[in-house]
Amino acid sequence: MALIVHKYGGTSMGSTERIRNVAKRVAKWVRAGHQLVVVPSAMSGETNRLLGLAKELAPQVHSDAVLRELDMIASTGEQVSVGLLSIALQAEGMQAVSYAGWQVPIKTDSAFTKARIQSIDDARVRADLAAGKVVIITGFQGVDPQGHITTLGRGGSDTSAVAVAAALKADECLIYTDVDGVYTTDPRVVPEARRLKAISFEEMLEMASLGSKVLQIRSVEFAGKYRVPTRVLSSFTPWDIPVAEEAVSGTLISFEEDEKMEQAVVSGIAFNRDEAKITVLGVPDKPGIAYQILGAVADANIDVDVIIQNVSHDGKTDFSFTVHRNDYDRTLDLLKSKVVPALGAASVSGDPKICKVSIVGIGMRSHAGIASKMFGTLSAEGINIQMITTSEIKTSVVIDEKYMELAVRALHKAFELDEPKN
Amino acid sequence: MALIVHKYGGTSMGSTERIRNVAKRVAKWVRAGHQLVVVPSAMSGETNRLLGLAKELAPQVHSDAVLRELDMIASTGEQVSVGLLSIALQAEGMQAVSYAGWQVPIKTDSAFTKARIQSIDDARVRADLAAGKVVIITGFQGVDPQGHITTLGRGGSDTSAVAVAAALKADECLIYTDVDGVYTTDPRVVPEARRLKAISFEEMLEMASLGSKVLQIRSVEFAGKYRVPTRVLSSFTPWDIPVAEEAVSGTLISFEEDEKMEQAVVSGIAFNRDEAKITVLGVPDKPGIAYQILGAVADANIDVDVIIQNVSHDGKTDFSFTVHRNDYDRTLDLLKSKVVPALGAASVSGDPKICKVSIVGIGMRSHAGIASKMFGTLSAEGINIQMITTSEIKTSVVIDEKYMELAVRALHKAFELDEPKN
Repeated sequence: MALIVHKYGGTSMGSTERIRNVAKRVAKWVRAGHQLVVVPSAMSGETNRLLGLAKELAPQVHSDAVLRELDMIASTGEQVSVGLLSIALQAEGMQAVSYAGWQVPIKTDSAFTKARIQSIDDARVRADLAAGKVVIITGFQGVDPQGHITTLGRGGSDTSAVAVAAALKADECLIYTDVDGVYTTDPRVVPEARRLKAISFEEMLEMASLGSKVLQIRSVEFAGKYRVPTRVLSSFTPWDIPVAEEAVSGTLISFEEDEKMEQAVVSGIAFNRDEAKITVLGVPDKPGIAYQILGAVADANIDVDVIIQNVSHDGKTDFSFTVHRNDYDRTLDLLKSKVVPALGAASVSGDPKICKVSIVGIGMRSHAGIASKMFGTLSAEGINIQMITTSEIKTSVVIDEKYMELAVRALHKAFELDEPKN
Repeated sequence: MALIVHKYGGTSMGSTERIRNVAKRVAKWVRAGHQLVVVPSAMSGETNRLLGLAKELAPQVHSDAVLRELDMIASTGEQVSVGLLSIALQAEGMQAVSYAGWQVPIKTDSAFTKARIQSIDDARVRADLAAGKVVIITGFQGVDPQGHITTLGRGGSDTSAVAVAAALKADECLIYTDVDGVYTTDPRVVPEARRLKAISFEEMLEMASLGSKVLQIRSVEFAGKYRVPTRVLSSFTPWDIPVAEEAVSGTLISFEEDEKMEQAVVSGIAFNRDEAKITVLGVPDKPGIAYQILGAVADANIDVDVIIQNVSHDGKTDFSFTVHRNDYDRTLDLLKSKVVPALGAASVSGDPKICKVSIVGIGMRSHAGIASKMFGTLSAEGINIQMITTSEIKTSVVIDEKYMELAVRALHKAFELDEPKN
């Protein structure tokens, strides 16, 4: 008997018919002898509907008091889901009980609409499991020290599921999604992309943050921090496939260094075309430059991704970074009006039509020449590299947006990701 | 400065546009110098939509565990409403904060879907009011001793509002509805029906229980028990009518014996055509008869309204009562198959096509001849009276359903309810 956490997304919960199928799938696992905790999302479209109502009433107000109410409103979507799923399970002959985040409780900080989980009390859930019940817990939400409802931000249900699995020391956390696992790259760009049977936590972190939108990145961080074996798998398989088959499907995010498993050098190709690059030219090279530039950007609540500063010459340097494309104009304005004059920099330039392409692989640590193979592949396709940044397990380049598909396909082939491994 | 509780029904909360109007109305009261607590219902149609989803999943299951989930689901409708209203108030420049029942907390027993309020903690609400905030509290719901969400049953938001007003010792509880007060009878039956400026708690109780569906009966009981001045008024007046005018509109349910106010002998005519009468004939007249008959009916969860047993002759008596028309066939079957054989009664008869008409008035206590005036009026119209039952402040008759409108109009005229009082 294992303790298993299932997480189902909004599409899986999108109608009573689909909820009934989720219940049948969960019941199948219970009948196979396992203890089950289920974390469902709100029915698809519900969170948007609720926040749309709120937006009609206050399109401009974003005070903490309003954000608190947004959480009060948005959290109801998951509360409806857990109640419905509990009823569906009981109609299947299971014992089941649902809890809102505050009832567990899942305690968070007070950052409304983007709260972070601080602790989860497992006593109530354990008692129900011991009594033979399936326990259903709202994703996406918790309660702060003052007893206010909080939400974790979009995709927060993944984080809830992994955090619950961590608190319960569950044997595995199964994230059911509308894809059947993590691929070497996006199959829409490279039809030969292949599903990975396993991926290391570190690789998954890079793949998620680089735009493979399979799992919310914070859930991966949680899985890594608490070493929760987490599997991404499809919710579109028939509910009655054997548990033994379902249990090894999808992609496992693993924490065990498996010596027998041949470690691929590069596991996948990630890409992101939502970014824009900005360069501050001719910055006097003295201490505090990076802070002066990025501090102002951060104060304006603009997230920065890649940051590059090269060596200086003649006491001047160029400082480059990328931001989300939606923040491009605002960032440029900010730099031109405040930062450049204060710094005594020469000028600011930028380009919103860029993309970032990355090779990710834990095997890169111990293999020389991977980065140069990447650069050589791009060069052979005539693609100019604008920026380069590297870490232990990934190498990213910024290139012209129009070359993105070409670059991803060429790299996918060059690193032999098209071929099935033995 | 007064402390006022406002309650708004689902129609008033039916769209963001209407919620905005509620916010403007509440803000107007705040600007007039009052402290405001608001108890809104779910947006109209929302509770039915939610319970409809649940019903699709478990049309037959009615265990306590399922009822608990129904409350989990249904309570979200009000939670959305309070959040939206708080946002609308903040957009109006007010300070506002919303609470779900469990956050106040409003403590109830554990009777899911029909819980009763046991206590309300006023500390949090008082602190917010003192800080200048409008406090918005979910109607219809609370939390039981184990931390489960409970609901109070249909119309429960009225009860929530009055209970909150009682706990806060509010100066008045204003129930905004889609009617502009309590009438001498239903204006659809008697066009000359007149709005009452005030009605005693006892009269309101009789009017409500007899089918004037203005207020949930439990809210009237609550208002009476805790002597909460409660006003029923229209939510369809323009939001910007002066507070001084709005404050005296509608009908006040009063607890003060006002010597100056001329006390009408009869305040209103109530009626109900949802009932059916049943008579057990030739029952041996010995102790325990009523219990044997009604005990069996109650065990089948059938509510009984009027009960009549007349004096016996020849050691036999006839025992009559009325039930909801929907329960008529079930009650007859039950009596025929079990009760009549066990009792040794002669037979059972009944009639589902009856109605009950009542005159209600606190002045009846001290005026003789009111009942006989009622009987004379009906007789003059050729209406046969089938059953009579009386209390201190009402007299009810059961008559053939087809005479209902005629009886109500004749009584309304006979007791001079058509004429405005001085």
